[in-house]
Amino acid sequence: MVTKGERTRAEIVDQGARMARVEGLNGVSIGQLAKELSMSKSGLFAHFGSKEALQLAILEHTAAQFVDEVVRPALSQPRGEPRLRAAFERWLAWGVAEEARGGCLFVAVAAELDDRPGPVRDRFVESQRDWLDTLAQIVAAGQRDGRFRTDVDPEQAAFELHGILLATHQAFRLFRDPAAHARARIAFDRLVTSLAHS
Amino acid sequence: MVTKGERTRAEIVDQGARMARVEGLNGVSIGQLAKELSMSKSGLFAHFGSKEALQLAILEHTAAQFVDEVVRPALSQPRGEPRLRAAFERWLAWGVAEEARGGCLFVAVAAELDDRPGPVRDRFVESQRDWLDTLAQIVAAGQRDGRFRTDVDPEQAAFELHGILLATHQAFRLFRDPAAHARARIAFDRLVTSLAHS
Repeated sequence: MVTKGERTRAEIVDQGARMARVEGLNGVSIGQLAKELSMSKSGLFAHFGSKEALQLAILEHTAAQFVDEVVRPALSQPRGEPRLRAAFERWLAWGVAEEARGGCLFVAVAAELDDRPGPVRDRFVESQRDWLDTLAQIVAAGQRDGRFRTDVDPEQAAFELHGILLATHQAFRLFRDPAAHARARIAFDRLVTSLAHS
Repeated sequence: MVTKGERTRAEIVDQGARMARVEGLNGVSIGQLAKELSMSKSGLFAHFGSKEALQLAILEHTAAQFVDEVVRPALSQPRGEPRLRAAFERWLAWGVAEEARGGCLFVAVAAELDDRPGPVRDRFVESQRDWLDTLAQIVAAGQRDGRFRTDVDPEQAAFELHGILLATHQAFRLFRDPAAHARARIAFDRLVTSLAHS
């Protein structure tokens, strides 16, 4: 059973994530959040104890959402190209969903945190690494099953796939390029071709 | 001849760019800048008239530097692969130089500006588009000269190259990955192979 305290905490994190997507994690203001949720600042503060703890909770929450919406559905697909394509397409859908929520939190946060050492940066790097590892493992599993050629380094493929995703996000979000997703799919197909047996 | 006023203006912009690389363009504080340059706030303000004008001047300055250090030297190379490779290698060197200056301004600014409509965002998008156009034109010139195959869309190649650069930046800057540049070169070689006549 979810207690009232847990429900309130979840509401704070959800609203905080919304704020972070636009203002960055550093722009999450406890005062502003309290106002938006009609709570007292001290009442809100009692749930986390520090702004850093709230920032960490926002990252955890979004990472868990990402696993639910992208990673887990992809891993339920058959190994090889279907699984890799599912991860890619789910990621595109995630970007669109995040756009509706105010832009992808992870992208908003990457440039903000790279110069700020500390637990929030560490947690963010960990979640980004998890995602790259997931992509590399999908490639490696496809290789073990004989669906992909084995002379491609899975981490290299993950790096390149990640590049496609970052370029897509920028084209979609910064350039408002209507061809962003079509370009992403062409680049993805080229990558898959390089993984396939010739 | 450079007047004293022009020299002071250049110093302000240079110091402002340094600040923007770490804090973002919105984090450029006129008060803090004046302190660092031992000027009065009103004296500094007189050079620009508004914070937005200073932000625009910082973008102009960095874009001009990028043209000097990356675009122009690349365009002096022979068409086809040498020119494309020069653009790519110059960009890697730019990333390292920007790292020494506090991180790449363009990357710091991309996530910050995507939600902030206005002249600063417009100017930034223009400079990013210029860079992607430059890459596409390098590919197209190589095609016209018969050095690249003609069934590849130059804008698609530019999109993918941009993705490699963004992934490299993140690996280098966020993950502190010592293999970032090596991965970038492998990805670049794969792209060049796809452009070459088979």
